[in-house]
Amino acid sequence: MKLRMELGERSYDIIVKRGSLSKASQLANFNRKVMIISDNGVPEQYIKALHEQCAEAYTMVFEQGEATKSMDNWQKILTRMMELSFGRGDAVAAVGGGVVGDLAGFAAASYMRGVDYFQFPTTTLSQIDSSIGGKVAVNLGHTKNIVGAFHQPKLVVADPDTLKTLSPRHYSNGLAEALKTGLIGSSALLDLMEDETSIDENIEQVLYYSLRYKKGVVERDEKEQGERKLLNFGHTIGHGIEAATAESSEPLLHGECVALGMLPMIETRMLQRRTISIMKKLNLPLSYKADPDTIMSYIKSDKKRHGGLITVVKVKTPGLGYLEDVPMQELELMVAGSNKEGV
Amino acid sequence: MKLRMELGERSYDIIVKRGSLSKASQLANFNRKVMIISDNGVPEQYIKALHEQCAEAYTMVFEQGEATKSMDNWQKILTRMMELSFGRGDAVAAVGGGVVGDLAGFAAASYMRGVDYFQFPTTTLSQIDSSIGGKVAVNLGHTKNIVGAFHQPKLVVADPDTLKTLSPRHYSNGLAEALKTGLIGSSALLDLMEDETSIDENIEQVLYYSLRYKKGVVERDEKEQGERKLLNFGHTIGHGIEAATAESSEPLLHGECVALGMLPMIETRMLQRRTISIMKKLNLPLSYKADPDTIMSYIKSDKKRHGGLITVVKVKTPGLGYLEDVPMQELELMVAGSNKEGV
Repeated sequence: MKLRMELGERSYDIIVKRGSLSKASQLANFNRKVMIISDNGVPEQYIKALHEQCAEAYTMVFEQGEATKSMDNWQKILTRMMELSFGRGDAVAAVGGGVVGDLAGFAAASYMRGVDYFQFPTTTLSQIDSSIGGKVAVNLGHTKNIVGAFHQPKLVVADPDTLKTLSPRHYSNGLAEALKTGLIGSSALLDLMEDETSIDENIEQVLYYSLRYKKGVVERDEKEQGERKLLNFGHTIGHGIEAATAESSEPLLHGECVALGMLPMIETRMLQRRTISIMKKLNLPLSYKADPDTIMSYIKSDKKRHGGLITVVKVKTPGLGYLEDVPMQELELMVAGSNKEGV
Repeated sequence: MKLRMELGERSYDIIVKRGSLSKASQLANFNRKVMIISDNGVPEQYIKALHEQCAEAYTMVFEQGEATKSMDNWQKILTRMMELSFGRGDAVAAVGGGVVGDLAGFAAASYMRGVDYFQFPTTTLSQIDSSIGGKVAVNLGHTKNIVGAFHQPKLVVADPDTLKTLSPRHYSNGLAEALKTGLIGSSALLDLMEDETSIDENIEQVLYYSLRYKKGVVERDEKEQGERKLLNFGHTIGHGIEAATAESSEPLLHGECVALGMLPMIETRMLQRRTISIMKKLNLPLSYKADPDTIMSYIKSDKKRHGGLITVVKVKTPGLGYLEDVPMQELELMVAGSNKEGV
């Protein structure tokens, strides 16, 4: 299956196809220097498969985990590219999850004011969500994605075969973003995820529907001035939970936190029940260990904050998310509602 | 005088007017948090004049000089903005020369994936050239502008009154970019600079003609894919000289180096003589202390390099620059030709 992100001169193809990773060179120009960015959680065979298709490939493998999305690592990539005399016509490729994609993408965005980059997402999370749309960033201290750019990739190759090596927990983690998409933009996707057939069996369809919805949103609002903010559904509280549990004994993954962060934003009991039931099917957590004050302190540095208000996304009708400005005090009450089974 | 940079939703005004600095709030929205970036070579009164017009202003004053355009300082700005809870709707303002504009601009480009910024250039160099066009960057090690973005300002205010406090050397340094503009794009500007009337007396016209030419080029080629490369006239060798002399006993300024770098790219003796005569009128240097090998080593990491060739800008007819790919060996010969009065 193939989608085309239509953004004028920044348009690109999104491939969802088994075995596509090893055929990437048929789809884009790898006949140049390519800096492959990955992490040590990614099976080497995927990096190798891409490496073989490039005229002159270099590889930088970082430690798996959110801490990798640092200013330091970003600077290491830029320095290495400079030392290897990368030019404006050369490129960067990300092989891995969202952390790798964001780090590689921001390096590509800023090296010589922007060079090409390719996304080879190998996790459900990045295949469903982070690999498309061009939002790239690194963290500064504990604040996520505070430094970054909008820089669209030249090609996205989502090969579902690469998901075979993903742990069940990470597999489900990414599907939380599909659940998000179903809630804010596609009741058909929500139905599909509730279907008796296992989600795994329908994975290509789940990927395709998720990407198709996101693609439309990005096309209509590339720079997140309006509609694209819908994609932040669950993220405001979710980022807070993610940061707050990061240094606890039980850190949670991004998608897990987003799912928890969505719950208090669902306005009907019926839809909340359906959501919880899908979360259970996916073995996503319904509680976490972090206190609301810590979570709030992270939320207070959120980009969506303006004055005493914060823009959040809510859902009443399946597939129809909407934006709402809520006072910070109200959000504090909602944070409590994200911990369904108590601390 | 006012020019309008027409770049669709990224359009903005460029004001060239005496006294405009203290009237900036009539021209744009300063009713928000504004991070003012400047350096200790800029008279405090200019910073103060802007500060007074903002609802909530903060100031960061760096050391004057190219070394300020570092990753470290850029990160300091981002950290401070984060600590002060700057949001997407807040802004950055640069008060000073090109170094300050580039540093502030890249901070604005990357903070939360891009916030507004304003340019208040207070030097001839920045008023003529660097404050418009949206090319922002910092240096990495000795490599200039290797990390950056294309991020257009929301407003540029060039107040010629601020030039009164500029040293004669820096004043002339900036006019080298006007000379560049005359050579590649405006024979009328070249004539104006040769006029018996002092350049100082015609300064508003010189600024205006320079900006008007650059504006057209940026409008036609915002991301430097083609025509905009013309603006790099003199810069390939110039950057090399700048880097090579930076740590010598007689470091040269950017414009001085650009002027020297233009000389070997002028294809007729007649035009070269005219150029040298204007350089003398401006007291620009015609020689420097750096050996060609050191200069070449810096040029080799140039962005315009591809394979064994490098794209340079040449001029035969006044006002008509053109691009040419030359082999690196040929460039070595040209480097020698940039040192008119020998080492």
